[in-house]
Amino acid sequence: MTKTSVFNVQVQFGDCDPAGIVFFPNFLRWMDAASLHFFRQQGVPAWSQITDPPGFVGTPLLEIHTRFVQSATYPEDLQIHTHIDSWAPKVIVQLHRVMRGETLICEGRETRAFCARDETGRMRAIPIPAWIRELCE
Amino acid sequence: MTKTSVFNVQVQFGDCDPAGIVFFPNFLRWMDAASLHFFRQQGVPAWSQITDPPGFVGTPLLEIHTRFVQSATYPEDLQIHTHIDSWAPKVIVQLHRVMRGETLICEGRETRAFCARDETGRMRAIPIPAWIRELCE
Amino acid sequence: MTKTSVFNVQVQFGDCDPAGIVFFPNFLRWMDAASLHFFRQQGVPAWSQITDPPGFVGTPLLEIHTRFVQSATYPEDLQIHTHIDSWAPKVIVQLHRVMRGETLICEGRETRAFCARDETGRMRAIPIPAWIRELCE
Amino acid sequence: MTKTSVFNVQVQFGDCDPAGIVFFPNFLRWMDAASLHFFRQQGVPAWSQITDPPGFVGTPLLEIHTRFVQSATYPEDLQIHTHIDSWAPKVIVQLHRVMRGETLICEGRETRAFCARDETGRMRAIPIPAWIRELCE
Repeated sequence: MTKTSVFNVQVQFGDCDPAGIVFFPNFLRWMDAASLHFFRQQGVPAWSQITDPPGFVGTPLLEIHTRFVQSATYPEDLQIHTHIDSWAPKVIVQLHRVMRGETLICEGRETRAFCARDETGRMRAIPIPAWIRELCE
Repeated sequence: MTKTSVFNVQVQFGDCDPAGIVFFPNFLRWMDAASLHFFRQQGVPAWSQITDPPGFVGTPLLEIHTRFVQSATYPEDLQIHTHIDSWAPKVIVQLHRVMRGETLICEGRETRAFCARDETGRMRAIPIPAWIRELCE
Repeated sequence: MTKTSVFNVQVQFGDCDPAGIVFFPNFLRWMDAASLHFFRQQGVPAWSQITDPPGFVGTPLLEIHTRFVQSATYPEDLQIHTHIDSWAPKVIVQLHRVMRGETLICEGRETRAFCARDETGRMRAIPIPAWIRELCE
Repeated sequence: MTKTSVFNVQVQFGDCDPAGIVFFPNFLRWMDAASLHFFRQQGVPAWSQITDPPGFVGTPLLEIHTRFVQSATYPEDLQIHTHIDSWAPKVIVQLHRVMRGETLICEGRETRAFCARDETGRMRAIPIPAWIRELCE
């Protein structure tokens, strides 16, 4: 069974636009928080505390494909269900489904690379540490 | 020749995150502004001033696929080059290329529907008005 | 005893700036949410559902004085303690104390007017409805 | 004559709230940008490039008192007029007047300290460098 986390959001007045609905970049802001929340929920420490591999910096976003199905507004409670949909040697696809109970509001498919800095300070993609994959799969 | 608009952004300190680079949802915020700016530049009036068709509400976003190529930081000047990449009867794909001079920073491909409210107040996609297509193609 | 509400915030990566601390306008965004949360906690319905007085629109902000004491960063949990510090016939001062446990992070003193639209649609300050004061004092 | 800078803002759809007007924390976001813009306009280099005094980090915000006079909406053009209203040995008051042409929209009075890190890395207020005061007064 794929590991999933749920990140809760309460939509605020200030998250909504003149049409009275959530201004869409806020959904991506919440998905970014949900991405990090997923790793913490699986027991992966904060990126800055990871020493294996050395120079690890996190999982920068390469792409995000977002599909909007229903609008949401304040003061609704939303739940972002997150799991990792596919694993490549250095890259994952993380799927975020923003739900209002049983209703799908929008869906974001993020491609993220695992990255570290080498001795020269240059950031590059690295093979996903086996212990992280084991915790999150 | 496809009509293109250029929307200028000066990245601010507060647009950047603890990694020192633009927090990515801000790119989508700017693309939304660039989308509207494109229509205004082609001579399309504000949505609220359009009377043909009646009940016109604008171009809600259905999907956005964003690809990040290079990071950007403050106080850089960015230029968002926007055009309409494809036309379907009720839907367009609008392409935003965020540039720093000659360097591509990121690219967003938006699918937007032309929508109006019918007599009952329900919003639905409508055929793209010919006069708007003529101005923007 | 003055009625107080507590609004919880978990600071996210994207709320922080290149200095690694919360970008200050986010504190004001959270205080705005805490202001509304206070009224809901005391049993005051959503502004749009209030029929007495007619045309009631809410409590627009006239002034906010914010004082920053300590910085905060992600992924800290903050608590915003909110109460009404003084009552004038048409205006309140609402005090928000942003705490991290026992530590004061910042403090915002908001002046808000109770407002309604008259028959002509013009918005003006109105005497604070007695039933709202009773619930919130 | 007091030196003044003008920072231009074009209000976007996404800066506005369900009431159709600028969501107020955005004014503070723009004032923060206007604060930095003021120093750059007077010829003060980026904080990170200042070597005298050593360890200089910038001008953290201690307080901001904001007063809202008129609302603003999209797609209006606003101008933020900024100057330094008073000088203390280590602290300035910077005044931002957000105008729409001749109309005052809101006004923010910021108290900022000049800060540097000492040898131990601790940040503390320092006497304002004479050369910065000379450029900005």
